[in-house]
Amino acid sequence: MAEKKAWVLTITCPDTVGIVSTVAGFLSQYDCFITEASQYGDPLSRRFFLRIVFQTGAMTPHIPELRKLFTLVASRFQMIWQIHDASRKAKVVILVSKFGHCLHDLLHRYHAGSLPIQIPAVISNHPDMQGIVEWHGIPYHYFPLDKNDKPAQEAKVLEVIDSAGADLVVLARYMQILSTEMCVSLQGRAINIHHSFLPSFKGAKPYHQAHARGVKIIGATAHYVTADLDEGPIIEQGVERVDHTHTPEELVAMGRDIESVVLARAVRWHTEHRVLLNGSRTVVFR
Amino acid sequence: MAEKKAWVLTITCPDTVGIVSTVAGFLSQYDCFITEASQYGDPLSRRFFLRIVFQTGAMTPHIPELRKLFTLVASRFQMIWQIHDASRKAKVVILVSKFGHCLHDLLHRYHAGSLPIQIPAVISNHPDMQGIVEWHGIPYHYFPLDKNDKPAQEAKVLEVIDSAGADLVVLARYMQILSTEMCVSLQGRAINIHHSFLPSFKGAKPYHQAHARGVKIIGATAHYVTADLDEGPIIEQGVERVDHTHTPEELVAMGRDIESVVLARAVRWHTEHRVLLNGSRTVVFR
Amino acid sequence: MAEKKAWVLTITCPDTVGIVSTVAGFLSQYDCFITEASQYGDPLSRRFFLRIVFQTGAMTPHIPELRKLFTLVASRFQMIWQIHDASRKAKVVILVSKFGHCLHDLLHRYHAGSLPIQIPAVISNHPDMQGIVEWHGIPYHYFPLDKNDKPAQEAKVLEVIDSAGADLVVLARYMQILSTEMCVSLQGRAINIHHSFLPSFKGAKPYHQAHARGVKIIGATAHYVTADLDEGPIIEQGVERVDHTHTPEELVAMGRDIESVVLARAVRWHTEHRVLLNGSRTVVFR
Amino acid sequence: MAEKKAWVLTITCPDTVGIVSTVAGFLSQYDCFITEASQYGDPLSRRFFLRIVFQTGAMTPHIPELRKLFTLVASRFQMIWQIHDASRKAKVVILVSKFGHCLHDLLHRYHAGSLPIQIPAVISNHPDMQGIVEWHGIPYHYFPLDKNDKPAQEAKVLEVIDSAGADLVVLARYMQILSTEMCVSLQGRAINIHHSFLPSFKGAKPYHQAHARGVKIIGATAHYVTADLDEGPIIEQGVERVDHTHTPEELVAMGRDIESVVLARAVRWHTEHRVLLNGSRTVVFR
Repeated sequence: MAEKKAWVLTITCPDTVGIVSTVAGFLSQYDCFITEASQYGDPLSRRFFLRIVFQTGAMTPHIPELRKLFTLVASRFQMIWQIHDASRKAKVVILVSKFGHCLHDLLHRYHAGSLPIQIPAVISNHPDMQGIVEWHGIPYHYFPLDKNDKPAQEAKVLEVIDSAGADLVVLARYMQILSTEMCVSLQGRAINIHHSFLPSFKGAKPYHQAHARGVKIIGATAHYVTADLDEGPIIEQGVERVDHTHTPEELVAMGRDIESVVLARAVRWHTEHRVLLNGSRTVVFR
Repeated sequence: MAEKKAWVLTITCPDTVGIVSTVAGFLSQYDCFITEASQYGDPLSRRFFLRIVFQTGAMTPHIPELRKLFTLVASRFQMIWQIHDASRKAKVVILVSKFGHCLHDLLHRYHAGSLPIQIPAVISNHPDMQGIVEWHGIPYHYFPLDKNDKPAQEAKVLEVIDSAGADLVVLARYMQILSTEMCVSLQGRAINIHHSFLPSFKGAKPYHQAHARGVKIIGATAHYVTADLDEGPIIEQGVERVDHTHTPEELVAMGRDIESVVLARAVRWHTEHRVLLNGSRTVVFR
Repeated sequence: MAEKKAWVLTITCPDTVGIVSTVAGFLSQYDCFITEASQYGDPLSRRFFLRIVFQTGAMTPHIPELRKLFTLVASRFQMIWQIHDASRKAKVVILVSKFGHCLHDLLHRYHAGSLPIQIPAVISNHPDMQGIVEWHGIPYHYFPLDKNDKPAQEAKVLEVIDSAGADLVVLARYMQILSTEMCVSLQGRAINIHHSFLPSFKGAKPYHQAHARGVKIIGATAHYVTADLDEGPIIEQGVERVDHTHTPEELVAMGRDIESVVLARAVRWHTEHRVLLNGSRTVVFR
Repeated sequence: MAEKKAWVLTITCPDTVGIVSTVAGFLSQYDCFITEASQYGDPLSRRFFLRIVFQTGAMTPHIPELRKLFTLVASRFQMIWQIHDASRKAKVVILVSKFGHCLHDLLHRYHAGSLPIQIPAVISNHPDMQGIVEWHGIPYHYFPLDKNDKPAQEAKVLEVIDSAGADLVVLARYMQILSTEMCVSLQGRAINIHHSFLPSFKGAKPYHQAHARGVKIIGATAHYVTADLDEGPIIEQGVERVDHTHTPEELVAMGRDIESVVLARAVRWHTEHRVLLNGSRTVVFR
């Protein structure tokens, strides 16, 4: 028997009759107690999304066995599914350049225990953040960019990510455009924070673009990394009011707070298995 | 057989193992297709809340029969439950005094079809709103208050509410304190909009109180009416930033927009059976 | 002597030393009492913006005389300036098509006295809004569009605008693209509400575009009409959170509330002479 | 002659005719260039508030001389006034207990240069934050509380504050009630962050109170410390939406982000001399 602990079951499948009753019946049959459940059937894509947190009971088989048993249910409904240990802290590798606000924010949440993650490594193309990272007891990998050999640097970055066993890679204002190969290899497990309210102001210097357009609200966007720059599925966005008195530099400063909060939320939701992909969009069970 | 249409099942009961699987299994067994489901187990009160929207299928019994069949399930789990016709427009009786902004807002949403309600009657202790109400083809009941005989006025109000078969009574800035008897008789089916961010600034002239305290954000609160003034379960709240330049009168003016939006949301959620009571608090399945 | 009443002085000029002291000194000299003043010097464009509300005193000359006296000051600083009667209600002509929410909102504010404007005419290419407009005692001009002769329809629209002496034209979800000629003729005195958070989702069906992109926040934008569609100077924007459960139709419904509030604010600020143009951007002295 | 640099002039006085023109004229006369100006006349208290940022010019006297010259103007209008060096970084002493989120946030802003302050000392009744504070090179004073001799501890705290020459004391979740004597001695130069949307939920465990009341929005409040607990003039407030699923502990966690941002804003505005007292309320020239 498995010990009494919490697990997260996530499911994506074609929408049809009987999914919930079958899954709930399965869990009930094996003495699992549902503590949280969220579902969504997309009327456009006809896909169904389910996230269930359950506790195992005295009669529940070991999880590997439960997974095996669930395979029958899953295949009947063509499910893409996973059962995650809810108490396991995700391994998050952070990439950063010179702007440290998002890194700082994540480090503090990690340190204070308010964001239940592990940070096995921080990687940067600049040395600036080494001090604060190592103060937290986290290895800092400084891989400067040789413009003539970007692939070599990316190979080093990937090697650290792989050897750390990263569940998630966070681009916390990492100011380098990743190669298509790298994007593909990180597909679905890398989150970027873009410093604009996408799809407005893609590309470089978005706050300056926002200032030039005279917008009255600025924002930031956390999204999954895809090869198509700034076009990945959006996980979370945040905004703040601005007015005519704000210079581009002040927008940059205000943006830092939005970016930090938005990125922290996206990291939390991803590591709690609350984000499911629905084509180029996300289902976020908050 | 019932025609293929949508129904809303709401359930409140003690939290335990197997509720979802039993209910989902029941619906599946009678050929019902779940299109929306929300659940919540309160870890403090140990109560469980469920809202399911389902469509009946070719093999589904008539709803009265389905209700009868469900009784067995319900009694096993000590459920408080209802099955509502999702296409039925709730009958909403609106009470108003001299400030017409909330009334206007509800009338427009009703008129534009964006709020799926019926308005069989508007009742007021003032004649001011008669014109716009009757323009919408709705009977206007003007019951002025005789200070020496408030019970007589309340009796008339209740008679209109009853004869209209009201599902919901909305106090859209009705500036009269209801008697305890009236509150009790409307328990659970009357919503008030209070013009402050409760529990701050209970009682009269809340915007003036807010100004005196120098707050930087004002708000409004939609809550169920209870005999305990301004203490009923909160359904929705909204806020807006203010600053030192705003006079009490300007706060009043800004507050109107907040009140209208907050009240309209509360009315929508209640009439869509999204609001369940959890002691003195609400569960709102948005 | 002028009666004791309030006036609004707006000034735009190249930034330099002594503007405020000169203007304040001028007003003081002629016994005017400043009740409100806002200023802004744009460090990029080197333009200076000033808005002063003042009351005339016992020794103040008549306003035409005061204007004449101010000319000397103004020419010295190359000022673009105006003195407006603060108590005069601006004449606002509203254009609308089939979606009535913004119109309704403006009518209610007008009716309740919370938006100090006159509405000499409402113009539409559809008959739908005739009833509610005429109930408010406002002439409704129904000019259907003959696709083969759009200029003829525009000519009629302009004629009503001109003969009404409109200070401001509001496109309250008027779903017609104005000709360049018409845009030019309305330059600086026409406000459009665009149903997206510009510059995202320009053009048609913005809420459907927003849904397809999977954004987590939607918005609306009030801007001055220019020949360059959806590119006019932004006056105000508003936003609201959305999530994966919202269909495009629900985004449209939520958007209505944002549009109404944002447009009402822009109309208020414009008619209170709080909006000054700074190239393609606006200075808004709220 | 003074070098060309920026100064902040703040003024509070009875409202009357000619203040702005006199002050602007004075500055103009002594070759000062106004780069920013905000004013407010309170129609209720009849007090006038002015904040002007100006640059000195070639002909401007030294600031001590300018101050002396201004005395004549000031006494004529009964002004409470100051001229601050805009480039001088305020000395901010931070008090903290066990919750480090606000401290962390301030340290990061200080470290990144985004909040132009000096932090000569951090004081705590717990040892927990010593590591991170000293990593930033800031002295950490750990003064545990002897319940039988609170005055002794307060005396030590005050001594550090005094010897550091603190311009501002920030209670960054310092969980001790200050004595009346200490409140009086810090009057007008101490900011507290209260973890609720005041005046709701004064006193202890406000998030638990908020949960019990079932509010749909929580908040935090930065205010000046006064002897009357949680009643000091409010500088800034922030809010966040919550729903029925949030436990008191989750409200606490969400509240941390609000508290950090709200406190940082209050500290910025105070140290930039943007906050003027208006009785028990504040004028904040943002």
